[in-house]
Amino acid sequence: MIFTGDELLRGDIVNSNQAYLGERLLEVGLFATHALTVADNLGSIVEAIKAALAREPDVLLISGGLGPTEDDLTREAVAQALGVALEHRRELLQQITARFTFLSMNMPPSNRKQAALPVGAAALPFTGTAPGFWIEAGTTLIAALPGVSRELRTMWEEELAPIVRSRLSIQTGNEGAGVIVRRLRVTGIGEGTLADALKDLPWREQGVKFGTRAGLSGITVILRGGPAKKARAGVLYLESRVREILGDKVFGVDEADLAEALGQVLRQHRLTVATAESCTGGLVAKRLTDIPGSSDYFVGGVVSYSNRLKTALLGVSETLLATHGAVSEPVARAMAVGAVSRLGADCAIATTGIAGPNGGSPQKPVGLVYVATSVESEIEVARFTMFRDRDEIRERTAQTGLDLLRRRLLKRRPVDT
Amino acid sequence: MIFTGDELLRGDIVNSNQAYLGERLLEVGLFATHALTVADNLGSIVEAIKAALAREPDVLLISGGLGPTEDDLTREAVAQALGVALEHRRELLQQITARFTFLSMNMPPSNRKQAALPVGAAALPFTGTAPGFWIEAGTTLIAALPGVSRELRTMWEEELAPIVRSRLSIQTGNEGAGVIVRRLRVTGIGEGTLADALKDLPWREQGVKFGTRAGLSGITVILRGGPAKKARAGVLYLESRVREILGDKVFGVDEADLAEALGQVLRQHRLTVATAESCTGGLVAKRLTDIPGSSDYFVGGVVSYSNRLKTALLGVSETLLATHGAVSEPVARAMAVGAVSRLGADCAIATTGIAGPNGGSPQKPVGLVYVATSVESEIEVARFTMFRDRDEIRERTAQTGLDLLRRRLLKRRPVDT
Repeated sequence: MIFTGDELLRGDIVNSNQAYLGERLLEVGLFATHALTVADNLGSIVEAIKAALAREPDVLLISGGLGPTEDDLTREAVAQALGVALEHRRELLQQITARFTFLSMNMPPSNRKQAALPVGAAALPFTGTAPGFWIEAGTTLIAALPGVSRELRTMWEEELAPIVRSRLSIQTGNEGAGVIVRRLRVTGIGEGTLADALKDLPWREQGVKFGTRAGLSGITVILRGGPAKKARAGVLYLESRVREILGDKVFGVDEADLAEALGQVLRQHRLTVATAESCTGGLVAKRLTDIPGSSDYFVGGVVSYSNRLKTALLGVSETLLATHGAVSEPVARAMAVGAVSRLGADCAIATTGIAGPNGGSPQKPVGLVYVATSVESEIEVARFTMFRDRDEIRERTAQTGLDLLRRRLLKRRPVDT
Repeated sequence: MIFTGDELLRGDIVNSNQAYLGERLLEVGLFATHALTVADNLGSIVEAIKAALAREPDVLLISGGLGPTEDDLTREAVAQALGVALEHRRELLQQITARFTFLSMNMPPSNRKQAALPVGAAALPFTGTAPGFWIEAGTTLIAALPGVSRELRTMWEEELAPIVRSRLSIQTGNEGAGVIVRRLRVTGIGEGTLADALKDLPWREQGVKFGTRAGLSGITVILRGGPAKKARAGVLYLESRVREILGDKVFGVDEADLAEALGQVLRQHRLTVATAESCTGGLVAKRLTDIPGSSDYFVGGVVSYSNRLKTALLGVSETLLATHGAVSEPVARAMAVGAVSRLGADCAIATTGIAGPNGGSPQKPVGLVYVATSVESEIEVARFTMFRDRDEIRERTAQTGLDLLRRRLLKRRPVDT
């Protein structure tokens, strides 16, 4: 893999594309041996491509350098490394122009260069404004992808992966090659506790490796076996054991999002939800509405940042606020009550807390959070001490709110369909 | 920079050390030209070191491979690449043993190998259990650091950075080396248009490089000069020229956030703001409340996802909704009016649009968005066609709402303080 971009070398950006592509390659049975980040310098990129090709890899992925600026040199570098010319592709220019037209924008002249590809290359359809391409050099498939993560991912999944898969099975006759990887998405448990809970399972005996990756939207438990049949069975066996241990803390697989998992449960129960947010400031509603189709179950929400609006929009009594303070169990409860009655929903998630960095006190320190959930007028309030900075406290609070409601609903019998 | 570790190539871990070290090198006036991640394979690591030394860099940083396992090969690889032997360092073994004693642990025999360093190398004191080392090869300073981020960072800051600094100033006599970098944060303009607008400035004549980095929360224009005094003046001169051209599209420097910039303007004008969101689903409020202290000017918001709540919470008339549809200029306007009156704020941002992927029609396609801003009861509505996927449409819409209000307020005379 070659990544171009001064910004990756200067540390302006962490190169998450490398990990993404490394994982995707593994899924198709390829193990990345080298990943080089190189400056936006034509000579350096050409040299890097030549050095990579000298190792005769099955696949050489190049990411970045496909934009319209002078620093975008990948097209030219591939052509030079292979000793072929760049040729202007009329149909590609039409596609690029069409995107600008679609966006009601004038195409700057600099974007014309994106329609030039090395002779022999095939364009990869694009979702942004940067077309990718692929070309064969000896036994190596070279593919150029955008540096923008989102565009790179779409192009890999929708365009390049099928090409790589078909090319590998032709070459090696090894259909269905690839290690088996299962990823379980988990929340509501710490990474250390989770590792301890799983460490005594028969990983070694089953030829399966496991790892975890933690983020603010949950932990991913990764189970990985080799391509052999035995390893496949081992992965599936261990997945079932992990699921037994973690129970409803597992909310999905692969890239599953907790808000989507909650949405599925709400649909199953034919229930709607509203939000009443203070410290999360709209983040719970944002998470819910990240999911396409969420208008089926999400009616709306209130961000009652000021006490005045807690009263005006949610009916939280001024006495309650004065007696207990905005960050308290009774106020969280009253917010959930107000969300259900004022917004007209079956369920509610309400948050109030001190996200910091200021506003804490010995009695109510930064990180103190109350999360209330309401399921058909039954309200539960949980108290947490969240840690780290403002962003993390808010993200963890939103995640917790979504999860508490999901787990409460899982305990109910779904509506028959 | 060389990073060793199969886990970095398989994508189990994102390599954040690369960005960290790239940024640190820049601070001491060094620009990383190559960053290679290589598998835990002795031959590959030796080859990588030799290839790197052939370029005669000032510094070669190697991260990872200093642990006690069979996969930890950096000590041996450096020795082989330089053609020197590994030698056992008694005093280093004592330090490693002491750490285990300090942690009340028995030292496993495998850790003994960590006390072997290439002949000529100096050990770098360690905070974990992995000692680093440095050694000179021709004009290159080779340094080996742990792969664990926390240990790497401590070792760089406390041990290696002073060595690199002193070595560079001895070599070049250039005390206070370090490039000058200015980063301007810009929004409301496309990356291509921006590059075209700036490309004819005298970059080359002034010895200044410029680049852009685009994201959903704005574009960063990066101006970078060398350590020479002239370049410093050039960067500052060109910054003023860029600011002239971009005007109020520049909202800050470095890591500035648009919501923070809006907050500053609101404070200057002693105005408050409320939000009324449909398609952004809470994201505008979330962006505003990302900023500590935003409760000073943000009173709250409504996520009126359903039409029913647009009427109930914001007073948007049912007739208006039926006549024009929820995604329309009149409804955006009515939402802003409702936000101001129902939530009691001086200003408002209201959004309504079709974020997709479904719900579009030929008349109202996915990406059609209306953003209304209200400043003391004067309302302006703008229509946009946002592009790409649901996430981007929502992010761009929120960004646009924050920016439209900011730029309207900038045209007013601030309150005297």
